[in-house]
Amino acid sequence: MFKRLLLTGTAALFLIGAAPITQQGSTTQSGVLASPQEVLDAAPASAWMTVPAEDLVVMTLADGRKIDYQLAPDFAPVHVANIRQLVRSGYFDGAAILRVQDAYVVQWGRPDEDKTEARGINATPPAEYEFTPPARFKPLPFRDAYAEQVGHAKSWPVASDGHSAWLIHCYGMIGVARDVAPDTGSGTQLYTVIGHAPRHLDRNLAVVGRVIGGMEFLTDRPRGTEDLGFYKDDSQRIKIVSTQMASDLPADARPAFQVLDSDSPAFAAWVQARANRSGAFFVKPAGAVDICNAQAPLRAVQSAPGTN
Amino acid sequence: MFKRLLLTGTAALFLIGAAPITQQGSTTQSGVLASPQEVLDAAPASAWMTVPAEDLVVMTLADGRKIDYQLAPDFAPVHVANIRQLVRSGYFDGAAILRVQDAYVVQWGRPDEDKTEARGINATPPAEYEFTPPARFKPLPFRDAYAEQVGHAKSWPVASDGHSAWLIHCYGMIGVARDVAPDTGSGTQLYTVIGHAPRHLDRNLAVVGRVIGGMEFLTDRPRGTEDLGFYKDDSQRIKIVSTQMASDLPADARPAFQVLDSDSPAFAAWVQARANRSGAFFVKPAGAVDICNAQAPLRAVQSAPGTN
Repeated sequence: MFKRLLLTGTAALFLIGAAPITQQGSTTQSGVLASPQEVLDAAPASAWMTVPAEDLVVMTLADGRKIDYQLAPDFAPVHVANIRQLVRSGYFDGAAILRVQDAYVVQWGRPDEDKTEARGINATPPAEYEFTPPARFKPLPFRDAYAEQVGHAKSWPVASDGHSAWLIHCYGMIGVARDVAPDTGSGTQLYTVIGHAPRHLDRNLAVVGRVIGGMEFLTDRPRGTEDLGFYKDDSQRIKIVSTQMASDLPADARPAFQVLDSDSPAFAAWVQARANRSGAFFVKPAGAVDICNAQAPLRAVQSAPGTN
Repeated sequence: MFKRLLLTGTAALFLIGAAPITQQGSTTQSGVLASPQEVLDAAPASAWMTVPAEDLVVMTLADGRKIDYQLAPDFAPVHVANIRQLVRSGYFDGAAILRVQDAYVVQWGRPDEDKTEARGINATPPAEYEFTPPARFKPLPFRDAYAEQVGHAKSWPVASDGHSAWLIHCYGMIGVARDVAPDTGSGTQLYTVIGHAPRHLDRNLAVVGRVIGGMEFLTDRPRGTEDLGFYKDDSQRIKIVSTQMASDLPADARPAFQVLDSDSPAFAAWVQARANRSGAFFVKPAGAVDICNAQAPLRAVQSAPGTN
């Protein structure tokens, strides 16, 4: 259909051997390569890890739209424990989307004037902005403006300088809002990235998860009219009617997601396919891919076939 | 205000000397540095270039919201001539936003089934995907995943491999939609980037401009439910009631914008400030900035004080 195929890069082709990852600025003439979608379609079930229900939060807005997000206990355990407690204690039930700043972040929680107590949390968690480089860190073979190395660890986007590592503020990643003092964020207000990755925030805030379902129900909101995109008052805010841990929902009501394992050969092939787009549409494959254009593929599944 | 300062990085500090651009992965301890906003506030009038009215398009939607976009005749002259002709001939009046794909693009024009003739254009323009590296190209001193060099030319984001150069698909940049064949885009359907820069599109489509006003009136739309985020039918599309060249509007009705000149010392200082965020909020300045996080600052002005 005229102009309906454009910008897709998923033309149907057969995989006839992996293409080389070419250097930046050059192009590959290595011929036919599978599209990213074809690599995913061909990935074995063993390459997909189920998102643990105890790491999955379901946030329901007043208009009935649901946002699912995954917590990252491996990288920010104290903040994640706080968020699980805030969810289970009902802290976010009746909270709201407070801020939508175009090309930057959507932020939710309870507004400054709301003094609802956050019960049972660690009110002054350690910063958790950085961690020891993970054993399972798989760096990409491409340059990055901000870090010596970027890649994936347990399918999360991670940067490293060799001594320290940190989660990257890619689109959809979730961080803990804080005040000016670096130790003032407990998890009572969270934000997610809705624009080009604001990498200057890396190592300056605790990154605790990522949106894996319903992201478009956050990004299509009116931008806030106040400084930093805050909504003017309660009349503009979008209410959160409930937030629940998926593990607390009846099995038949639980959303379930799988993420491609960054340790799997399929993941490596998918990165190559993202870096070297094939098909009739592409004149010049990039030969590289930015870490935030190579976020681990996720898929919704009918029911959780167990946890990894 | 509690948690209202977060993620701003524009704390008020005095400029007491430029900081070094530190290497990626390291942090700067060079102390107090001006914020990006302070650099802009201190920039002389001579550092700001007025966007020529003949390069500025005003698109008015059915709900009255206006989007202003700037054309790039220096880099895609044939496509820009086509777009000026399409605007002046009324081609886009009665067209619509056809596609909103989350984290990717918003696309507008006339739908496939609309056979309205595009009068007076070059129906098969040269691709204009690349050009000779511009004399005024100012590369950033930072790594890039996709190109040997990235930087600015006449305040546009440009990548170069030394032999060829091209405009970069940053947030808000506008390209010409096309069919699978690389020579099928004339300018009758345009798209703008609403997510993390899809750099794999660089050198594969003609980039012809950028949105400089009302971007949030494109990004806050419901995402399309069809493949690639296309709207299902006319009932979902957002109509474009008129599109005009600012130069064809009465002087008192013309929007006017200025862009910081990438050849100015103020621009270089602003890049340094973006790369090394200062202020009480930032624990670890990045020491670098991605080209799409360093798009030339723009400002609306009351009336056009002449063109550059």
